Amino acid sequence: MIDHRRLRVALLGAGSVGSQVAHLLLTQAAELAERSGADLELAGIAVRDVDAPRDVDLPRELLTTDAEGLIVGSDIVIELMGGIEPARAHILTALNSGADVVTGNKALLATHGAEIFDAADQVGASVSYEAAVAGAIPIVRPLKDSLAGDRVVRIMGIVNGTTNYILDRMDKEGADFADVLAQAQALGYAEADPTADVEAYDAAQKAAILASLAFHTSVPLEAVHREGITSIDKAMIDGARAAGYVIKLLAVCERLPADGDQGEDGEEISVRVYPALVGRDHPLASVHGANNAVFVEAEAAGALMFYGAGAGGIQTASAVLGDVVSAARRHIAGGVGVGESPRMSVPVAPIGRITTRYQITLEVDDEPGVLAHVASILSEGGISVATVEQTVEQPAEEAAAEQAPAPRRARLVIGTHHAREQALGDTVARLSSSDVVERVVSVLRVEGE
Amino acid sequence: MIDHRRLRVALLGAGSVGSQVAHLLLTQAAELAERSGADLELAGIAVRDVDAPRDVDLPRELLTTDAEGLIVGSDIVIELMGGIEPARAHILTALNSGADVVTGNKALLATHGAEIFDAADQVGASVSYEAAVAGAIPIVRPLKDSLAGDRVVRIMGIVNGTTNYILDRMDKEGADFADVLAQAQALGYAEADPTADVEAYDAAQKAAILASLAFHTSVPLEAVHREGITSIDKAMIDGARAAGYVIKLLAVCERLPADGDQGEDGEEISVRVYPALVGRDHPLASVHGANNAVFVEAEAAGALMFYGAGAGGIQTASAVLGDVVSAARRHIAGGVGVGESPRMSVPVAPIGRITTRYQITLEVDDEPGVLAHVASILSEGGISVATVEQTVEQPAEEAAAEQAPAPRRARLVIGTHHAREQALGDTVARLSSSDVVERVVSVLRVEGE
Repeated sequence: MIDHRRLRVALLGAGSVGSQVAHLLLTQAAELAERSGADLELAGIAVRDVDAPRDVDLPRELLTTDAEGLIVGSDIVIELMGGIEPARAHILTALNSGADVVTGNKALLATHGAEIFDAADQVGASVSYEAAVAGAIPIVRPLKDSLAGDRVVRIMGIVNGTTNYILDRMDKEGADFADVLAQAQALGYAEADPTADVEAYDAAQKAAILASLAFHTSVPLEAVHREGITSIDKAMIDGARAAGYVIKLLAVCERLPADGDQGEDGEEISVRVYPALVGRDHPLASVHGANNAVFVEAEAAGALMFYGAGAGGIQTASAVLGDVVSAARRHIAGGVGVGESPRMSVPVAPIGRITTRYQITLEVDDEPGVLAHVASILSEGGISVATVEQTVEQPAEEAAAEQAPAPRRARLVIGTHHAREQALGDTVARLSSSDVVERVVSVLRVEGE
Repeated sequence: MIDHRRLRVALLGAGSVGSQVAHLLLTQAAELAERSGADLELAGIAVRDVDAPRDVDLPRELLTTDAEGLIVGSDIVIELMGGIEPARAHILTALNSGADVVTGNKALLATHGAEIFDAADQVGASVSYEAAVAGAIPIVRPLKDSLAGDRVVRIMGIVNGTTNYILDRMDKEGADFADVLAQAQALGYAEADPTADVEAYDAAQKAAILASLAFHTSVPLEAVHREGITSIDKAMIDGARAAGYVIKLLAVCERLPADGDQGEDGEEISVRVYPALVGRDHPLASVHGANNAVFVEAEAAGALMFYGAGAGGIQTASAVLGDVVSAARRHIAGGVGVGESPRMSVPVAPIGRITTRYQITLEVDDEPGVLAHVASILSEGGISVATVEQTVEQPAEEAAAEQAPAPRRARLVIGTHHAREQALGDTVARLSSSDVVERVVSVLRVEGE
């Protein structure tokens, strides 16, 4: 028989994840004690309103509105309230009173992570946050521990289930963004106000956390370049498919190659979230529905991918409990918590400094010499062309009905070799103001090639 | 500045993985010190022959043939010799002298894991073995830590790169096993003696380790049901494709549903390795070439997949160094090592007790009433049929050339609903001895449905 120690666990928040965590702590107590070596006593659950309706029936006597009173004297504090305050204040109270902290609060970590990790390091406590990125998928621990002896070069993550669900249905059904969004809202896959998801605020928070972890730095949320998916239409999805790609909202975190522009150590990273083209044979292309996946390239390990459910109360609760068991084991083993690795300050480059491939779609006059003209503008901008496909557009019916014959238009789809974003942007601006280019239809980055 | 402690690291073995680990310890010393908080001093490398040729140039003065002398006084011992002895003796020496151990030795863990973990627990040291399963892919740590608060229900793993490479090429090129094996050997993807891979001995060792970890028990290697891929031919690959499947060598570890036959706690697991049919839309179906992937189903987390390179010196070295950094952090933090979770003894069921779906391919006389006869044998055996496809075979040319008209043969491909392996086997035996069945062409299990 093992002599179990008793650890006092405080839970802050009883939303969809919190109520599942409470339920599992109460119903799986014997298994959790076996795994952790400690009896995990749920001392209380801090909520805003003890009478609010809950997904899961929780013992009334555990509910309290006095979070600070609950925290003091606890060994492990689980923060699942979300938001910045009072979550931040409660976590600092917990750390300063000697508790280990487990949180799933991506907004807080993306904005106040450095402050919280420093506070933990000072008292030798730990802050675990597997639930903050990609729900149930173990990605924080692999990056922090498994790859600790390796050097991460690039991360490409599908880290927002709502947008992946929308893009996947648009791809499968040839449907338009607004229609799929409405369906997703009806089915509960998207919020009534979908801004945080479709404008990629949620994904940007996760990108900041992933990049901070992978590159041992502290990436401010403002440094993350962010573009949402609201401009993605059926034509772009179809064009992607025709060229052998699928459009995914990607969080890309990468080390930039040294070229003299970098910060003091010659190191520079890029952290960005945008819809990008991914080759259909890339492992990320097969991530369907509301699933998440994080594709990691490391110098020694090569390419790794971590796949699973990105959200959901019960799924995310699994990640929280994994962290709780680890925190309990640390308590039993004695010794101080292992904090974040020493953090360097690695500068985040502006988006203009990244290098990737692009797909530029132009509507041009269908006249001799147009392609040559476009090609010369690209060449002058230093943009090297890999592929060009030209299709003549059928004149629209309204135009055909008019007196004067409508000018024939052609569509040019240009795939570039790797180019600097700054040079690409300048060149697209010149294309846009050129006489032969009617319209720049779209410019999409190609990732993973 | 952090006041770094100095830790003495002993490396046993300088093969393809060991020499890469030595190289990284020597060349990435500054980064490893930052990550671990300790200066990792490579005290020596124990080899059988200091003059043997190596993949990587190693400093001659570090090489020694005195492994036991090197081990004593070390803080971390990395065992990459492979084989049972003297690896087992060295690891026990290391643990008893207070060192943490990192090993990639799957054969040793699959046969002597319980002894080694017990020895570590007794002295409060740790044994880490991320490199023993699925090369660079973090799977040991996610199972041990991230899912510690969850309950793993099933694991399906592609854990042998050589056989996945062979089956993938057979599937893509419609080639025969022997031809692809010969090519794989020429390209270095398969050993001159391919037995350990193609007869699934290697995969069985990894299955024993994965099951022990996932179900908190100790699975003896002899309890793993093992079938290799040597009987897989072009016709089976084609038949799988026609039915929407791909054939993969899978390591399956699962909890069996309670039905009264179980051991004392009512718990029983199955651990088996065999070629199985996987639906083309299952995430495991898209694991190509020599890659590995482990698909995990847990009660709360749902379906997760971990994907990456399953072998390779540099890739596997990444997993070893992740374990080394963790072991170093533990040393710095103080406290005893966190051993394996308390292990229960969960009985492993014989293969007859599993329940899955099957695809049975029969060659039968093409006569009226044959299908009815086959169906009645299946029904009497309690095997419920989901799909039947009958194709009339073209008489072979030799047969056509003979005097007497050859009897017309038909091929029946029967997909069953879930059935007990024992009942299925008994029924296939009755089919085999039936007058109307010319030949049982193949019986394949279907996994992941």
